[in-house]
Amino acid sequence: MSLARMGNELRCQCIGTHSKFIPPRNIRDVKLTPSGPHCQNVEIIATLKDGREVCLEPTAPWVKIIIKAILDKAEANGEAKR
Amino acid sequence: MSLARMGNELRCQCIGTHSKFIPPRNIRDVKLTPSGPHCQNVEIIATLKDGREVCLEPTAPWVKIIIKAILDKAEANGEAKR
Repeated sequence: MSLARMGNELRCQCIGTHSKFIPPRNIRDVKLTPSGPHCQNVEIIATLKDGREVCLEPTAPWVKIIIKAILDKAEANGEAKR
Repeated sequence: MSLARMGNELRCQCIGTHSKFIPPRNIRDVKLTPSGPHCQNVEIIATLKDGREVCLEPTAPWVKIIIKAILDKAEANGEAKR
């Protein structure tokens, strides 16, 4: 949704963002792209389990919470044991 | 580095992680994959500006700081103005 993907990502990838909550169980992964010369916006793109890609609103509180939850889970897993 | 990519990502993608600091200016994007049936580890894969993909250690403090910095930048940008 609202995703305009270019080959080498030399411009913004999102033409809009989705700010409504998406349940974490539906999310396969989340990609964060810092702003830069290619795009003035920070872009956060979630890939859903059904393969769809959705641009998330980087300032939405639930987006930050989901990202923090992923990191906290790693901590709880004690990833180092791997 | 230490990346074993499968087509549909039905197993872990990282066979090891890089815990040494990578300067944010070298990072194009960062992908977070929650743990799940496909892989018991949270996986964080950075794509560098030279195209290399690097598995980062999810519990490394600098990794969290970089992710937080990307989110904070979005906030500072006032992304809503878009």
